[in-house]
Amino acid sequence: MTANSARLTGVLSPVVTPFDSDLRPDAGRLARHCEWLISNDVGLAVFGTNSEANSLSTKEKMSLLEHLVEAGLPSQRMMPGTGCCALSDSIELTKRAVQLGCGGVLMLPPFYYKGVSDEGLYRNYAAIIDAVGDSRLRIYLYHIPPVAQVPISLALIERLLKDFPGTIAGVKDSSGDWANTNAMLKQFQPEGFDVFAGSESFLLATLRGGGAGCISATANVNPAAIARLADTWNNSDADDQQTALIKTREVFQDYVMIPALKAAIAQYSGDDTWNHLRPPLVELTPEQRKTLAAALKANGFDMPGLHAAAEV
Amino acid sequence: MTANSARLTGVLSPVVTPFDSDLRPDAGRLARHCEWLISNDVGLAVFGTNSEANSLSTKEKMSLLEHLVEAGLPSQRMMPGTGCCALSDSIELTKRAVQLGCGGVLMLPPFYYKGVSDEGLYRNYAAIIDAVGDSRLRIYLYHIPPVAQVPISLALIERLLKDFPGTIAGVKDSSGDWANTNAMLKQFQPEGFDVFAGSESFLLATLRGGGAGCISATANVNPAAIARLADTWNNSDADDQQTALIKTREVFQDYVMIPALKAAIAQYSGDDTWNHLRPPLVELTPEQRKTLAAALKANGFDMPGLHAAAEV
Repeated sequence: MTANSARLTGVLSPVVTPFDSDLRPDAGRLARHCEWLISNDVGLAVFGTNSEANSLSTKEKMSLLEHLVEAGLPSQRMMPGTGCCALSDSIELTKRAVQLGCGGVLMLPPFYYKGVSDEGLYRNYAAIIDAVGDSRLRIYLYHIPPVAQVPISLALIERLLKDFPGTIAGVKDSSGDWANTNAMLKQFQPEGFDVFAGSESFLLATLRGGGAGCISATANVNPAAIARLADTWNNSDADDQQTALIKTREVFQDYVMIPALKAAIAQYSGDDTWNHLRPPLVELTPEQRKTLAAALKANGFDMPGLHAAAEV
Repeated sequence: MTANSARLTGVLSPVVTPFDSDLRPDAGRLARHCEWLISNDVGLAVFGTNSEANSLSTKEKMSLLEHLVEAGLPSQRMMPGTGCCALSDSIELTKRAVQLGCGGVLMLPPFYYKGVSDEGLYRNYAAIIDAVGDSRLRIYLYHIPPVAQVPISLALIERLLKDFPGTIAGVKDSSGDWANTNAMLKQFQPEGFDVFAGSESFLLATLRGGGAGCISATANVNPAAIARLADTWNNSDADDQQTALIKTREVFQDYVMIPALKAAIAQYSGDDTWNHLRPPLVELTPEQRKTLAAALKANGFDMPGLHAAAEV
């Protein structure tokens, strides 16, 4: 129980997943990228949307998670994505994450069937909590309607929080809708339900609203600056920091996010393997990589320490 | 190669998956329902949308498929759904289906990431075909934009058909858009690409347009009548048959389809276990079951032979 007692807080990254030339997940490169993130005070939301988690089988995710823990990465700073379409997959992955001492799990709703009821989603989470049967379990609900197309309503959160206090630990709000994040902060944060913004664009506003931090794609490439704002948001330069973070994020948002993150890591590490993606995602074109590189350079962007960490 | 040489044609059913009271898939009941469908000349599109396929793990699907073949059901009349979000899952399932002699596989595109490119979807199918590496493989593309939210465009079909003739065997069009089905019939059916309508509502029109048949949810409960139209569509009563099929289908469409199908099977078999569904889907309320039963009775609906087949 001890390892899980500290609540996850601050900045986490949905860690991008490297693939070898046969498109197999590359556990060694993943561990090195995780080390670099941890060295920049960014926690490990492995198997998030930006990790291509849903392009990995349950077996592959289990194996990668075990490798990371064996490699000595701190499991109490991990929030692996364990919410799958199949209840049986969600249970298997979540059980293993708890056994390995993960600080929490980030759980998508089952996302194939659309227009499902809150009752059905409630039963999904309740069945997982029941099957895992471990008081160390901390579930962070993953609200990302633009991708999953299955939202997690405020009414559903209220019901889950009432029936499973402590276990229902918080949310990642990737709706992109500040009004929704703000409603969660006002309604649930005072009950110890930790609200994480879905990107650093709302980090300062979330922290000022009493929230826990953010879980952001671009924390894969800009971890130090994002973590600094989470650490110093009471400082007088907080708004300037926030503005700078958004400016950097916008460079990546001109491209499809996941291949753009991988292209930046490939460029700054000199390791082209990072440009591999599993279908249905595709890498940036050589021309796009050039314009991204130029835009990052013009922005004064850097990834200090990455190269050494990424050496094979 | 012999077992696969006959093309799948006529009517197939996305066979509903029974679950026991612990929500484990029930292979015995599934096999009995498959026997009843085959006895009514309906093929087995197990692991379709209406099978709650995406609520099953890859391991569970492998095990169920093996059980059906061991139970003596004809694999050459099976078109299991093997398209998953994860490339590795799709490869594993598809390989096994081919090894077991399945007449074809029905493949969803990877459906988590939205707004993906045709290039990415092409690579997904190409990678699976390459990894399976078996000339017996016949892929039926599964176009169901209302649920998957990831469409299979005519341009993508054209490219796949050109590069993998024979292997790209056809499509199930569940768009509900007759103009799209008709475009597929005109553009691809003459090349030996078999177009299946996504429900019996378009069965007669599809057959008149040169198509192969339909794959329909309601074939789970109304198999004989649907198969009869596929068999006698040149008869003078074909339009009357089509009208009657639509009338029966509309009774089910007043409810959420999957629980309604299960409620009818539970009612006509006297086996209440059929009312179990995995979250996020939920069973019909007792009141809904009553009104469904009354509507079916008023329609003269029956499921002859089901009770005996469903006996444990």
